Amino acid sequence: MADEFVFEFLHMEIVSYFEKQTEEDDNLIISKLEQMGCRVGQSLSERFTRDSPRFGSELDIIKFICKEFWVGTFKKQVDNLRTNHLGVYVILDSRFKLLTHMSAGDQYLESAPKYLAYTCGLVRGALASFGINSVVTAEVSSMPSCKFQIMIPKT
Amino acid sequence: MADEFVFEFLHMEIVSYFEKQTEEDDNLIISKLEQMGCRVGQSLSERFTRDSPRFGSELDIIKFICKEFWVGTFKKQVDNLRTNHLGVYVILDSRFKLLTHMSAGDQYLESAPKYLAYTCGLVRGALASFGINSVVTAEVSSMPSCKFQIMIPKT
Repeated sequence: MADEFVFEFLHMEIVSYFEKQTEEDDNLIISKLEQMGCRVGQSLSERFTRDSPRFGSELDIIKFICKEFWVGTFKKQVDNLRTNHLGVYVILDSRFKLLTHMSAGDQYLESAPKYLAYTCGLVRGALASFGINSVVTAEVSSMPSCKFQIMIPKT
Repeated sequence: MADEFVFEFLHMEIVSYFEKQTEEDDNLIISKLEQMGCRVGQSLSERFTRDSPRFGSELDIIKFICKEFWVGTFKKQVDNLRTNHLGVYVILDSRFKLLTHMSAGDQYLESAPKYLAYTCGLVRGALASFGINSVVTAEVSSMPSCKFQIMIPKT
């Protein structure tokens, strides 16, 4: 379906817009994209759960992120979810949508974090909409496969 | 379908991001959004026409914008198309997607142009992908109905 490009192209354009503001360093770009994602993730999560029953546990909420939320946003489920049952969750997407437009060569590994920051924010925002504070990071070892790590500090 | 919000919420977030950069005036915000739209419109048009035959005339291209392009981007066709047959086309969308999140009251009429600039750019970019230079403007008289005017200078 062509219509998914409506979101993907806009996302790429925003990353490249921030890149062009040359006075800004990569960390600032990533932080801005993450914050944007966070606000959008919160709104999306509210939409996607409008007709859902309440979730019983933290794991149920993470599963919602991996299924409904991922499908709604990227048109596919994640490929794997792991947890240490101590508040750390690792989501694997072996063909992450926002990286598939980039060449799979190693030369782009360096710029990959900029294309993942918005999604880290989406996840953090979605979790925040359930009252869960988290730290979400991403890493790419070989394109377009990507791991998102969610850390939920235990109080 | 909830997934259309993936694009709409990101679009709203960008408008509000530019608004928060308070040193910038409305015209600069509009111009930045329009340019973003233009680059995306060009890419989208190339996607949407990938399997289409060539268009025979300018009017065919405008009709493509009103149908396939609008459906791909906003999940609906435009409601009306008028032309003076001298290079001016007026597209009416009586329920324009990127305005439906705003209250229909007159108090938001003033900020509406910022929510239309990206789409003006999309249309200009799409036309540019066919080698057509144009000036695209938008006006709202009552929300969420919106008119886009395309002017194609005759050389």
